[in-house]
Amino acid sequence: MTQVSYDPRTGGINGEVGDSTAEEVRAAVRAAAVAAPTVAALSPAVRRDWLVAVADALESDLDALVALADAETALGTARLAGEVQRAAGQLRFYGAVAAEGSWLGATLDTAGPHLARTKVPLGPVAVFGASNFPLGFGVVGNDTASAIAAGCPVVAKAHPAHPLLSERLAALARAALSTAGAPESVLGLVTGQQAGVDLVRSPEIAAVGFTGSQAGGLALWRIANEREVVIPVYAEMGTVNPVVVTQAAASRMAEIAVGLVGSFTLGSGQFCTKPGLLLAPRGVDAAHEVAQALRSAAPAPVMLTSAIAAAVRAGVEELVAAGGRLVVAVEPAPGSGWDAPAAVVEVDAHRLVPGSRLLEECFGAVVVVAEYDDPTERDAVLDRLQGALAASVVTDGPDDPEGAVLARRLGGQVGRVVVDDWPTGVAYTWAQHHGGPWPATSAPAATSVGAGALDRFVRPVTFQDVPDAWLPEPVRAANPWRVPRRVDGVLEVPR
Amino acid sequence: MTQVSYDPRTGGINGEVGDSTAEEVRAAVRAAAVAAPTVAALSPAVRRDWLVAVADALESDLDALVALADAETALGTARLAGEVQRAAGQLRFYGAVAAEGSWLGATLDTAGPHLARTKVPLGPVAVFGASNFPLGFGVVGNDTASAIAAGCPVVAKAHPAHPLLSERLAALARAALSTAGAPESVLGLVTGQQAGVDLVRSPEIAAVGFTGSQAGGLALWRIANEREVVIPVYAEMGTVNPVVVTQAAASRMAEIAVGLVGSFTLGSGQFCTKPGLLLAPRGVDAAHEVAQALRSAAPAPVMLTSAIAAAVRAGVEELVAAGGRLVVAVEPAPGSGWDAPAAVVEVDAHRLVPGSRLLEECFGAVVVVAEYDDPTERDAVLDRLQGALAASVVTDGPDDPEGAVLARRLGGQVGRVVVDDWPTGVAYTWAQHHGGPWPATSAPAATSVGAGALDRFVRPVTFQDVPDAWLPEPVRAANPWRVPRRVDGVLEVPR
Repeated sequence: MTQVSYDPRTGGINGEVGDSTAEEVRAAVRAAAVAAPTVAALSPAVRRDWLVAVADALESDLDALVALADAETALGTARLAGEVQRAAGQLRFYGAVAAEGSWLGATLDTAGPHLARTKVPLGPVAVFGASNFPLGFGVVGNDTASAIAAGCPVVAKAHPAHPLLSERLAALARAALSTAGAPESVLGLVTGQQAGVDLVRSPEIAAVGFTGSQAGGLALWRIANEREVVIPVYAEMGTVNPVVVTQAAASRMAEIAVGLVGSFTLGSGQFCTKPGLLLAPRGVDAAHEVAQALRSAAPAPVMLTSAIAAAVRAGVEELVAAGGRLVVAVEPAPGSGWDAPAAVVEVDAHRLVPGSRLLEECFGAVVVVAEYDDPTERDAVLDRLQGALAASVVTDGPDDPEGAVLARRLGGQVGRVVVDDWPTGVAYTWAQHHGGPWPATSAPAATSVGAGALDRFVRPVTFQDVPDAWLPEPVRAANPWRVPRRVDGVLEVPR
Repeated sequence: MTQVSYDPRTGGINGEVGDSTAEEVRAAVRAAAVAAPTVAALSPAVRRDWLVAVADALESDLDALVALADAETALGTARLAGEVQRAAGQLRFYGAVAAEGSWLGATLDTAGPHLARTKVPLGPVAVFGASNFPLGFGVVGNDTASAIAAGCPVVAKAHPAHPLLSERLAALARAALSTAGAPESVLGLVTGQQAGVDLVRSPEIAAVGFTGSQAGGLALWRIANEREVVIPVYAEMGTVNPVVVTQAAASRMAEIAVGLVGSFTLGSGQFCTKPGLLLAPRGVDAAHEVAQALRSAAPAPVMLTSAIAAAVRAGVEELVAAGGRLVVAVEPAPGSGWDAPAAVVEVDAHRLVPGSRLLEECFGAVVVVAEYDDPTERDAVLDRLQGALAASVVTDGPDDPEGAVLARRLGGQVGRVVVDDWPTGVAYTWAQHHGGPWPATSAPAATSVGAGALDRFVRPVTFQDVPDAWLPEPVRAANPWRVPRRVDGVLEVPR
């Protein structure tokens, strides 16, 4: 078996990559397991330097990476150049987070038995990157960068939507890591669906990071749950991200529609944070306004794979079959590639009930629009939504009383609440949370973007009455890594 | 159906408690769900005051609680009085941890979009307490105290080994909570096995805390995984906790044996941290020494339930059938209660292989003893052990070279490494970790004892560009709760 690389704009073939054999998967996993203790024992500052080296390598190869990524994804060179820089920035960020050391949670109690708690890396991590962010969430994306930062070697699976880019990224990163002095096999790569299954079943694999569809994420979660030693699966899958327009903001509906179109058509609607449902007050003719804005924007979505393009077309039909009215479908000019329509589907709010297709994600540049009569109906609809990654509230400003109520309420349902901006766009910073309640993710307390991403790949260990010289560095009396610590209940931050 | 309360010393009946009906479970869960938003929104200092009120109530009722607990568990009045005080101390500790506020992980980024990350309570938590710590891990034990501290109402399930105590504890706590101004139903109680299943299946339940057997914990984990919305199950189950004696410590074998007997017979061997396997250097006659010490100690184990007593007898037979040699079984004087032998089983190290009964937990005052030829055989045996809650290393002091190696190695296999002391005894402090790799627990990054216990019942939410007045208190500019925060990457600790 091979993974064929296609050009989404034409359906033509870029090349192909052979699937990894079972033996090749074993070898990659074993090599990662051999490297694991060394990677875990080194100071986080050393691993930061490795990640910086990979970041530098990405930027040095920017033009070639963009060209290859564009040939495989059709996401456009401007967006992809930004994504290379984002990937490089992320690598440096997770390295800096690692070196700062708070993630180790170093804690010492000296009053009773001497207890010294610190976190230890779990071991080799399997990373399944996303189709839609070939760089930011790819072979050297958030999961890989945060796992290595936390002290875990990674075996990544090449994405079938961009197998050539996956290979190039892995080769580039391995060369940079090697030059930076990292042990062999801090990063491995396997290719093919069976290789991915074998990877998760490998006893040495200690955790899984995944970004993609609910079907894919839950399949890996089930495989992991059937292992003799069950391991955590951090699957970021996404559902329908709602946007709620308050009564007071209704007068701005035309302007809101333009913003919404920009957000739900971004990257051909292939964002896990795409706003998939607009809830607007009754009487603003929201669907009409959004349709109008969509016609003006005239997007021409080209999807990442033929399967995704087919799923978009099927999805629009399913939304209509479930009771939606197709207000507009902007069809790209006929081409030989994997194009798909951009569409607005209007629906009566009472049809938004659990189990309906209308409340399931429709990947692509498709939005469902409903109007609510009053706060009671609005809240009833919100209660019926699945947990989501993000939600937006469109308000009339800080004096809008509905805004405060909605921001608090949506905080109970999603991982990120945005006011007067769109949910697409996830900064990699200290305060970011890119996660959300089941089934948006399989681990709602985990984030795949931001400083908290490291927390997924470690577990605490407490050392009781262990002589100082035997302790891991973060909890030695001298604090050689100069990490923030809690000593007898008091936080101490090195300056 | 009813839960019959037995006196383990005689097998006599103390009384009985009727099982909760399905409607009663629904009512308890609904009441908790109604209380949840209020409990979550209040300042942690308010919840601390509630927990202090419960602690005070426990101490005021100490004599009656001890008498009732002793009648149902036979754990002895001295131990049980200590456990009441421990439960009270824990309640106060988790309250103080909540009020300190670090667990909220409040984080602000102001350079790009304004991102404000804080943790929010998950919602109602189902708590399944332990048979063996009716107070410390019971209806108002670690799980309940840490869940309420974190802002989650609790519905506890009465333990069948002490249903009357469970009822009394719930009534006592509810009265104290009510007097302290807590909303109704911060703590509910249900009784009966089916009620427990119904509880975990209830859509409003957001997480499960469990302490007990592997069979029980994994059953709840499976039920939770079959829900439409899967929820986390924090099951602390325990496996075989190993004790390794270094070559240099071998000369102290007689003294070590006395200490080991004290630890593995404590509470009739009914500790999840009971040392279940002693690995000593070849030639020290370890099994004989331990047998000698056990005869001198002459314990008379009375087990918590007739099922546990029967399981101890069966377990010793199974260990022998798996290749162990019964060196000594100290039988209590014949009684009509649920007595069981205390036993030492010797085994050749090469028989300690995965899948063998010899490497599975045998609850009760039973220890398996093996001798290793050299570090290679010692490490081979350690490699074959399941993940465990705790391990002890018995050394010749800080200059013992084997100690450092073993402490680091065992840190990769267990949740807590103890040097020159026994694993039984788990202090509730900031640096404690009471957890461990699968299958010792279902969630190796979680702890059921210590400050980290709160982390199980919250998830992060990021608020993006949300007006200050709409934000949760921990991330408002004025920091009204005075919690430690990270602002633009820098930790700030209020003084």
